[in-house]
Amino acid sequence: MAEVVHMIDSEVFMAFSTYATIVILKMMLMGPMTSYFRLTRKVFANMEDTPLGGSAEDRKKMIRVDPDVERVRRCHQNDLENVIPFVVVGLLYALTGPDLSSALLHFRLFVGSRFIHTVVYMMPLPQPSRALAWMVGMVTTFSMAYRVLTTALFL
Amino acid sequence: MAEVVHMIDSEVFMAFSTYATIVILKMMLMGPMTSYFRLTRKVFANMEDTPLGGSAEDRKKMIRVDPDVERVRRCHQNDLENVIPFVVVGLLYALTGPDLSSALLHFRLFVGSRFIHTVVYMMPLPQPSRALAWMVGMVTTFSMAYRVLTTALFL
Amino acid sequence: MAEVVHMIDSEVFMAFSTYATIVILKMMLMGPMTSYFRLTRKVFANMEDTPLGGSAEDRKKMIRVDPDVERVRRCHQNDLENVIPFVVVGLLYALTGPDLSSALLHFRLFVGSRFIHTVVYMMPLPQPSRALAWMVGMVTTFSMAYRVLTTALFL
Repeated sequence: MAEVVHMIDSEVFMAFSTYATIVILKMMLMGPMTSYFRLTRKVFANMEDTPLGGSAEDRKKMIRVDPDVERVRRCHQNDLENVIPFVVVGLLYALTGPDLSSALLHFRLFVGSRFIHTVVYMMPLPQPSRALAWMVGMVTTFSMAYRVLTTALFL
Repeated sequence: MAEVVHMIDSEVFMAFSTYATIVILKMMLMGPMTSYFRLTRKVFANMEDTPLGGSAEDRKKMIRVDPDVERVRRCHQNDLENVIPFVVVGLLYALTGPDLSSALLHFRLFVGSRFIHTVVYMMPLPQPSRALAWMVGMVTTFSMAYRVLTTALFL
Repeated sequence: MAEVVHMIDSEVFMAFSTYATIVILKMMLMGPMTSYFRLTRKVFANMEDTPLGGSAEDRKKMIRVDPDVERVRRCHQNDLENVIPFVVVGLLYALTGPDLSSALLHFRLFVGSRFIHTVVYMMPLPQPSRALAWMVGMVTTFSMAYRVLTTALFL
């Protein structure tokens, strides 16, 4: 990691910034999507979220679990579990000064796999499509982690 | 991003460090708050967490779902879903070298909105107060993401 | 934070990269562990994940909640709630230029405590072993946050 200081100003770091921001924005959109499903299906988690105007009993019935809402939430949770490791490991990886082409390959594979994962999960498409999309993201992150550990190992 | 190296040593980066740490600490406190509710309401998720001394049957009854505990947990989850994107995007944003006043505005709005969000969620106050607090945080993060993408775009 | 630029190229930053990557990899392994429990116990969250070949009714019965699967998922969630704050605060802490020995102590304590936390949670071992492991991680992160705030405070 000798040339790290110069690296932070590099095309690799700009590419990381771009792809990390895009995939974080994608993850953030799962929040509004959950709200959309909650509002259209009238399924809420809190009493204060149910629409005013209905009777207390009607509103209480809206506090329930809905399969479509749970699906969006699982998709969001899977993003948290995978996108955040990518961002952390990807940042450290970008600072190890990899080749631009190699870095772009990692970032594009990961971000592409997460977009596919979301589409497959929400449709839903039959397995193993979701499993494969998830796997591509995992392998990409592991590959970057391997470079970080082999370049910067200091225990 | 030409002057990134000098930027990391700047007031903007110190401001980011300060606000990011404060809002992460706030998020971390949701953990102990969950434990507090679990212990005072005697509601647990694991058998090994129930108090020793009770009969096995009494302890099994404590493995249940409680509305107050679930409310803290949803609040914590909402923090994970919003604070972490802020921290990631905010770090990249700080490295694009924004004006100090503009950066402070973003950081203060976001961190303020999350404190308000937590108070509103825990009281709870009527909607749309929580929705608004959440929205301010989202818009702030989107605004920073916009600057990162327009400054550092490299696909 | 005057000498931050030189710090990023230091042994402290390499140590941070190493420990952050290791603990993120540990967290990521909770995903495959959940899949392993789901597949061996035949407990799924989505219809499309249930094995082909069974009747629709048999497959529907596999959409249920299993205590072992939920345990892994709680362990994973606890990692998200604790490891991510460590990574964020640890990065900022590494940039404040702490002593190498002090930084290594923080990183080793945190990462060690999270490995112990996972083992204790999965066995499970009796309390307060899990509470203590969790506490060590919290205190370590708070200690680093204290240094960040006292070194870089800019409100």
